[in-house]
Amino acid sequence: MAAAKFDKKYKFTFGLWTIANPGRDPFGGPTREVVSPAQVCDVLGQAGAYGVNFHDNDLIPIDATPTEAEQIKKDFRRGLKDNGLVTPMATTNLFSDPVFKDGAFTSNNAAIRAYAIQKTMRAMELGAEFGAKIYVFWGGREGAESDATKDPVEAVKRFREAINFLCEYSISQNFGYRFAFEAKPNEPRGHMYFAVTGSYLALIPTLDHPDMCGVNPEFAHETMAGLNFVHHVAQAIEMKKLFHVDLNDQDMGRFDQDFRFGSSNYKAAFFLVKLLEDNGYNGPRHFDSHAYRQSDAKDVLHFAKGSMRTYEILAAKVKQWNADKQIQQLVSEINAKDNNLSRLTKKFSKANAKNLLAAPLDRVALAKARLPYEELDQLTLEVILGTR
Amino acid sequence: MAAAKFDKKYKFTFGLWTIANPGRDPFGGPTREVVSPAQVCDVLGQAGAYGVNFHDNDLIPIDATPTEAEQIKKDFRRGLKDNGLVTPMATTNLFSDPVFKDGAFTSNNAAIRAYAIQKTMRAMELGAEFGAKIYVFWGGREGAESDATKDPVEAVKRFREAINFLCEYSISQNFGYRFAFEAKPNEPRGHMYFAVTGSYLALIPTLDHPDMCGVNPEFAHETMAGLNFVHHVAQAIEMKKLFHVDLNDQDMGRFDQDFRFGSSNYKAAFFLVKLLEDNGYNGPRHFDSHAYRQSDAKDVLHFAKGSMRTYEILAAKVKQWNADKQIQQLVSEINAKDNNLSRLTKKFSKANAKNLLAAPLDRVALAKARLPYEELDQLTLEVILGTR
Amino acid sequence: MAAAKFDKKYKFTFGLWTIANPGRDPFGGPTREVVSPAQVCDVLGQAGAYGVNFHDNDLIPIDATPTEAEQIKKDFRRGLKDNGLVTPMATTNLFSDPVFKDGAFTSNNAAIRAYAIQKTMRAMELGAEFGAKIYVFWGGREGAESDATKDPVEAVKRFREAINFLCEYSISQNFGYRFAFEAKPNEPRGHMYFAVTGSYLALIPTLDHPDMCGVNPEFAHETMAGLNFVHHVAQAIEMKKLFHVDLNDQDMGRFDQDFRFGSSNYKAAFFLVKLLEDNGYNGPRHFDSHAYRQSDAKDVLHFAKGSMRTYEILAAKVKQWNADKQIQQLVSEINAKDNNLSRLTKKFSKANAKNLLAAPLDRVALAKARLPYEELDQLTLEVILGTR
Amino acid sequence: MAAAKFDKKYKFTFGLWTIANPGRDPFGGPTREVVSPAQVCDVLGQAGAYGVNFHDNDLIPIDATPTEAEQIKKDFRRGLKDNGLVTPMATTNLFSDPVFKDGAFTSNNAAIRAYAIQKTMRAMELGAEFGAKIYVFWGGREGAESDATKDPVEAVKRFREAINFLCEYSISQNFGYRFAFEAKPNEPRGHMYFAVTGSYLALIPTLDHPDMCGVNPEFAHETMAGLNFVHHVAQAIEMKKLFHVDLNDQDMGRFDQDFRFGSSNYKAAFFLVKLLEDNGYNGPRHFDSHAYRQSDAKDVLHFAKGSMRTYEILAAKVKQWNADKQIQQLVSEINAKDNNLSRLTKKFSKANAKNLLAAPLDRVALAKARLPYEELDQLTLEVILGTR
Repeated sequence: MAAAKFDKKYKFTFGLWTIANPGRDPFGGPTREVVSPAQVCDVLGQAGAYGVNFHDNDLIPIDATPTEAEQIKKDFRRGLKDNGLVTPMATTNLFSDPVFKDGAFTSNNAAIRAYAIQKTMRAMELGAEFGAKIYVFWGGREGAESDATKDPVEAVKRFREAINFLCEYSISQNFGYRFAFEAKPNEPRGHMYFAVTGSYLALIPTLDHPDMCGVNPEFAHETMAGLNFVHHVAQAIEMKKLFHVDLNDQDMGRFDQDFRFGSSNYKAAFFLVKLLEDNGYNGPRHFDSHAYRQSDAKDVLHFAKGSMRTYEILAAKVKQWNADKQIQQLVSEINAKDNNLSRLTKKFSKANAKNLLAAPLDRVALAKARLPYEELDQLTLEVILGTR
Repeated sequence: MAAAKFDKKYKFTFGLWTIANPGRDPFGGPTREVVSPAQVCDVLGQAGAYGVNFHDNDLIPIDATPTEAEQIKKDFRRGLKDNGLVTPMATTNLFSDPVFKDGAFTSNNAAIRAYAIQKTMRAMELGAEFGAKIYVFWGGREGAESDATKDPVEAVKRFREAINFLCEYSISQNFGYRFAFEAKPNEPRGHMYFAVTGSYLALIPTLDHPDMCGVNPEFAHETMAGLNFVHHVAQAIEMKKLFHVDLNDQDMGRFDQDFRFGSSNYKAAFFLVKLLEDNGYNGPRHFDSHAYRQSDAKDVLHFAKGSMRTYEILAAKVKQWNADKQIQQLVSEINAKDNNLSRLTKKFSKANAKNLLAAPLDRVALAKARLPYEELDQLTLEVILGTR
Repeated sequence: MAAAKFDKKYKFTFGLWTIANPGRDPFGGPTREVVSPAQVCDVLGQAGAYGVNFHDNDLIPIDATPTEAEQIKKDFRRGLKDNGLVTPMATTNLFSDPVFKDGAFTSNNAAIRAYAIQKTMRAMELGAEFGAKIYVFWGGREGAESDATKDPVEAVKRFREAINFLCEYSISQNFGYRFAFEAKPNEPRGHMYFAVTGSYLALIPTLDHPDMCGVNPEFAHETMAGLNFVHHVAQAIEMKKLFHVDLNDQDMGRFDQDFRFGSSNYKAAFFLVKLLEDNGYNGPRHFDSHAYRQSDAKDVLHFAKGSMRTYEILAAKVKQWNADKQIQQLVSEINAKDNNLSRLTKKFSKANAKNLLAAPLDRVALAKARLPYEELDQLTLEVILGTR
Repeated sequence: MAAAKFDKKYKFTFGLWTIANPGRDPFGGPTREVVSPAQVCDVLGQAGAYGVNFHDNDLIPIDATPTEAEQIKKDFRRGLKDNGLVTPMATTNLFSDPVFKDGAFTSNNAAIRAYAIQKTMRAMELGAEFGAKIYVFWGGREGAESDATKDPVEAVKRFREAINFLCEYSISQNFGYRFAFEAKPNEPRGHMYFAVTGSYLALIPTLDHPDMCGVNPEFAHETMAGLNFVHHVAQAIEMKKLFHVDLNDQDMGRFDQDFRFGSSNYKAAFFLVKLLEDNGYNGPRHFDSHAYRQSDAKDVLHFAKGSMRTYEILAAKVKQWNADKQIQQLVSEINAKDNNLSRLTKKFSKANAKNLLAAPLDRVALAKARLPYEELDQLTLEVILGTR
């Protein structure tokens, strides 16, 4: 395979952990060789990616010596440079070490909560060293198996306290970070706090620095819970809080599969790309996924290229859909306007209320306006399947 | 059965539609006789309830004449009085009529959006007439089957515009309402906007009158999506936004079953009651459920009494759990304190940050603190099953 | 729209109830006019379908007089003839009437069980009158909300007794029927017996006439439970028990959505078509779905045509996949043969066992054989999306 | 904690892998020390268990030398004897090693299929050495992520070939095994073949030795797919195919949680125990679960005791339910008999058919028979919660 060329404007990024995923799962050991951060850069360079993101311990093992850490960073920097990659996002691993087995910021143990904050401060420094401007928080262990074991009201307070502290720390250090919270309903915990993107969107206005906080929704996470991911991202966009997005795929009601973006739910992937493109999202498109456990290094390259290729295919189909006259004619028809009424409902006034109450609206007549949604959905299918 | 006695402090309420549910479902017709609002009052009086709630069209059919409406209201008032019932909550039916088949506040049709607001204004007046102070919004048709048919970003804007208008209307009329938004992930729509309680908690700060807006979470709704309902209510409580709560039951990943409260998930029901009682929730405990389709009128009475009985059983068990020395000893042990560290993390300062970074936290040692969660969960089981 | 032309070899059929679906759901009344069986024939004729199936009460209302029934049948016959339609399948409505509210063949009431058999005997006669040769059993009410209410072991026995009786009846009347059982995990019951296709495949060998019994899997039903529908149909095919198939679509973990075939899960629909076509399935492709509740009569026609159109699109893509050299090269590579070993494992003998035990199989070496599944899956995506 | 005493008649067993589970998961490393098979015996002896089961590699690591293997077996035998434990069941690990990453009996690679059979033959010998008479097959890797990668019809054939071979091998070696197949819908594979117990019940009659084959349903597995586990076990019991059962717990629509039996779904656990006890199941009650990742060795002991304790609590409640006069009165009422009709439907004859067709069954009257299911379910709740 020759090096692929993908459009830089999409800012396609991968996590170090995605390309380096060794294929371990709860029922079996690794199937692929360990690869170093620098080697991941080479893979991503060959695949044609824009950048790479990392948890502190993806780059520097938790028990590395300072000397080892320096060497790793040096190698990684060379890997980035050789492959023309940037590092827009960094994050903290607050879930792998046994110390976090019952949570980090929401741990029942005050010393563990302090350690989690300390570890994040250090990881923020590491991220800043590589130029990251988006800092992701995924609370992989913030949750419970049995609600006998932790107070869910207290958990919210603990989480807020940690974030408020870290916002101030970022400001005091001039890191320039924007924080992006990533929700997940369950796994590895039986139940996780801040289960969906909306939970974090709700938290943000209660923080000391709401402006620097947003969300990082992940396709697989809302989808695990059988929710419509597109709608959750749409609310984040409407609230100007979409700071980052994690693209992958997943069947509903399943364990966390982290499949290649677009590989399972073609239609949902299409509408996600449509949402991002139509609304001018210009942050990174981050692929948080991994190759099948059967894949070898060569197939991992197919996985990486396929992720970006599928996004571009869908983006082209979005353009086609937006330009399709028959589709646009239907869209226009179903969005029936009524300027007089819209003027009344746009903004309350006593006069508007009075006029609205007096408006002779005939529900039987209104119910008859055509909504040819089967026709529209079938046309959409034909655009996506390439038969139109 | 003699009339039951339930504690008034719990404010047990039922919707008119719950007791009057005729047993229709998508695959079969009604199995029970139609009962009038006044008859529902008699059932609830006999069952020992505190109050009754209603949608506009539960009380007054959408096509009733003014004369019919007056007679119905008169009968209902007598029913309330005869049975010592109050009406703390009212809401609008924005889902049954064909006019709302593609949404009410988020309809693609400006005239239907206006009609939905108009209908809500009138329903608010009706609710106020009966003294309701909580006004619930459940957007039963706000959603889509195919995302080709509606713009999910636009939908948020449309919904906000309607609520802003109605807040002002409530204020202008001195209704004294507090608005409570009720989320649902799907059904009757393929996908519904504001799918979970967090989606509404996130919306509220973006409204013109956030103070008068809160949520009405429903047990079955988060549970349908396989989410932990208790955690979602906990966030609402922490944010002081739990204005109302809908109690029922449901298996995960299923159609909307609206089972009798506590009848399926005993453990989750226990923790919900614990959350409400421990946090001093003092709004109505509203049962939004219906009897099995096999039930006759007598069995509907068992259904109503059983709902309240189960709540009281669980509330007693919550007290027992809170007073159990062995349990409280474990709870105390697992919540390990460290005042020195807590002082550092409570509030950011440069000094605190510096000291925290320098704190010699040993993750290996910290990981060894005991968390006897199997023991604690098993003790909890024994409290709930009455063997302790 | 001109009348469509679809290939007769696919035997595209629709249920009377699908085209006639009025758009009622648990939260709202009908949105479409009632259409007669004869009118359904006209729609299907215009859409280009091959045939139409029915429940007894789709055709003849449960309370029709004999005279009314004769007139309806006469009209329906003319509708079939005018539109060149056949009626390959018939079935019994054992779920709509309140008498079946707790089951038909598995009811706790012996008289209701007898009535269900009686009703089926009559419905079988009606089906035979129209030439149906496949008789479907969907036990819409066979189940429970609470397992306190029915014995699930007894339920299996009751169901078997009814089927054994009806098999004999079919034989004695020379109806020539093959019975096809349709599984569903839940809805309208909280839990349904014979929840999945495998449950019926397991029942069949225990019946008195296993040869005349097979299955009618429905895409939405296994999919509701988050299962891979294709695998369940594959087992039925392998056991030569796929007598009929119900095509529609559905999101996982949701209420019964009965969406247009192929409209949600494009990839699963592709593999289902591939399974049916590759294995020479030649029974009807029956669409058991309905148009969106927003659709009017004209859009229902789009719905019907779209169902068949999508099947043909996917069948063409299956041919393309099967003929694609690069794909077939990968398929061939991954199916590594070893004739010596296959000879040993094909059939047990003491010699084979001994030789197999002695065979020097190196698990480390075997684990290294390439399985380029990301590459293969991405090529498949490109076939389905039409970019290859 | 003193050694517990549990009733031997329940045959409470644990897998070696359950007590020895080190707390690793997809997002984090182990939290507990490695314990040897002999140490597991000591834990189970102290907990009061009846026996212990094992995969070949739970006991003997896949790369152990013969000398090491002999020592381990010697230690394990002593552990069993010291603690009065038996080993009723054995099984093969066909999922952990990378060689099985795409399946064992259904692998696309003939040599891997042969290796899987060879490994099972050796594991059967090991099980027999310890007196196991039940041999479980869980096809942990039999499945696919993308249906492009494996033919699901061929997979059934491959699986059958392997089982037929191994049945003969068991017979030829006089192992006296009964085979028990364990279904699972997904995880670790995206989708797994033979997804539910019914899939195996359907396979068995197509095997060469159906009599020696049955099933080993696991609570968590059907529950993951949101299915009613009790119903699936009931069908196995009715078909006399329940050879073994795996008890644990799980939330619906989630990753494989393997919680302590009875810890999440109290009501479903009650009905499962009722089913087993009422139908005289006398095989082992095997706990296939593990302690929370937070648990230490002492808490693992609580986990083990709690599993058995909960079963005994529920068994006592089943007795109470069966002896409760009010409950039994309701059960008797709802099971309405009609001997005349039952005689007609019991067995087909032309006379019975004629008489049944002529029977004047009034569906409206039949629909009125009382089914006080809310009352019955609420009484059941009170038995389970210990308030009756």
